[in-house]
Amino acid sequence: MSFLLYDLAGADSERRFSPYCWRVKLAAAHKGIDLPTKPWRFTEKDAIADSGQGAVPVLETESGMINDSWTIAGYLEDEFPDKPTLFGGETGKAHCRFIAHWAEQTIKPVITKIIIADIYNRLHPKDRDYFRSTREKRFGTTLEDFQDQSGDQVEKLRRALAPMRSTLEQSPYLSGDKPAFADYILLSLFLWAYSASEIQLLAADDPIHAWQAKLLDRFKAVDGMAACHLPR
Amino acid sequence: MSFLLYDLAGADSERRFSPYCWRVKLAAAHKGIDLPTKPWRFTEKDAIADSGQGAVPVLETESGMINDSWTIAGYLEDEFPDKPTLFGGETGKAHCRFIAHWAEQTIKPVITKIIIADIYNRLHPKDRDYFRSTREKRFGTTLEDFQDQSGDQVEKLRRALAPMRSTLEQSPYLSGDKPAFADYILLSLFLWAYSASEIQLLAADDPIHAWQAKLLDRFKAVDGMAACHLPR
Repeated sequence: MSFLLYDLAGADSERRFSPYCWRVKLAAAHKGIDLPTKPWRFTEKDAIADSGQGAVPVLETESGMINDSWTIAGYLEDEFPDKPTLFGGETGKAHCRFIAHWAEQTIKPVITKIIIADIYNRLHPKDRDYFRSTREKRFGTTLEDFQDQSGDQVEKLRRALAPMRSTLEQSPYLSGDKPAFADYILLSLFLWAYSASEIQLLAADDPIHAWQAKLLDRFKAVDGMAACHLPR
Repeated sequence: MSFLLYDLAGADSERRFSPYCWRVKLAAAHKGIDLPTKPWRFTEKDAIADSGQGAVPVLETESGMINDSWTIAGYLEDEFPDKPTLFGGETGKAHCRFIAHWAEQTIKPVITKIIIADIYNRLHPKDRDYFRSTREKRFGTTLEDFQDQSGDQVEKLRRALAPMRSTLEQSPYLSGDKPAFADYILLSLFLWAYSASEIQLLAADDPIHAWQAKLLDRFKAVDGMAACHLPR
C-alpha cells in the first residue's frame, strides 16, 4: 500500500507545524510504514477537497482520502494489525481517547498562549491573513498581545503536565514499557511548539524531558523533525 | 479463595467513606468475586498491622494482607485472569495509571473542599480528633472554614471533569463499551462524596450523570452503597 500525507508547512516547506499531522507521522513510523509527506498550507483547501473538509492531516490512500488524526490512527491500527499496536486493544483505545481530550483541553491551550505569535512569524505569507484573522477573533486580542512567554506561563504548563509526570515516574512511557499513540498525542504538542519556537518548555531534570528525549531520538528521521528547534 | 476487606467506616458501620476501598469493592464485584467487608476506623491501626502500614484498603487473603487499591486491583486481575478484565492489558493498565493520577490531582482536591466537614460529622467519635488535627494541619484552617459547598465550587468540579465528559460523549464508559477499573477510579470519588454528603455534584443532563446512574444501578448491592446519599 502507498500513502501520501498532506502536512501543514510554513514559509519554509521543511517546517511542519500541525500537532495532528505529527500524530499521524509518528503513528506511521511506529508501525514501520513509509509515509511520504506533501507540504500543505492553510489556504490550499482545493488540494484536499476530496476529503470532504478543509483541514489536515489528510491521508491519501489508494482508495481515497481520510482525514482527522484519530480516524487515521484507527485506520492504520486496523490495516496493519500485525505491526506494533498503537492502542493495545479496545480498553487502551478508550483510555487513549480520554488522554487525547485531556491533552486538547488542558495542555494545548497553555502551549498555544506560549507560541501563537511565533507560529504566525513562520507561516507562508499566503496563510498569514487567514491565520491572524481567525485566531485574533477567537482570542479577542492580537496574536502579539496574546502570546506570553513569561516564566509564569511556562510554569503553568509544567504544573498542568503533573498527571503525565507522575505516570512517567512509574513507567517509561504513557503506554507502559513501550510507547504508543497516547505518547504521540503528547509528543505532538511538544513538536508543535518546537516547530515554531525556540522556547524551552521543560526543565532538564523533568521526567517528561527524559521521556521526550528518548522519543525524539527514536523518531529523528520523521519529516519535519530536522527543522524543529529541539530542546537541548 | 476467600477474602476480607478492611473498609473505612463512620459512626454508622454501614457508612463507608474511602474512595480507595470503593475501588477495591467495585473491582471485586466486576470480577464476580465475593468480598465480605469489615468496618474499620482510622485509629484501628493494630487491626491491619500485618499489612506493614496503617491505611485501608487492606485485603486479607489466605496468604496474607495486601494494601493499596492499585496493588489490590492488579492482584485481582492477575489472580482471576478469566474473569472480566479490569485493565484490558498492559497498555490499558498504563493508561489507567494516568487516569488515576489525573483523578487524584485534579478531581479529588476539588471534591475534598466540598465534603470535608461533612465527612468529619459522619465519623466515629474515636476518629474525630485524629481526622481534624491531620486535615487542619494540611489545609491551614478549620474543616468548617475550608469546606465550600457554594455553586462556584460545584461548578469548578464540573469544569474539571471536562475530559471525562468529552470521553463519555463518545463511548458509554471511560473503558469503552464496558466499564473497567478507570471507571471505578472516578466512580469511587463520587461514592466518597455520596457517603458523606447530600450535595448534588452533577447536573441531571450531564453525560457523567447518566454514566454514574448506570454504574450505581449495576453495583447497588456493594457494601456501603445503601448508606450513600445517591443522586436523584
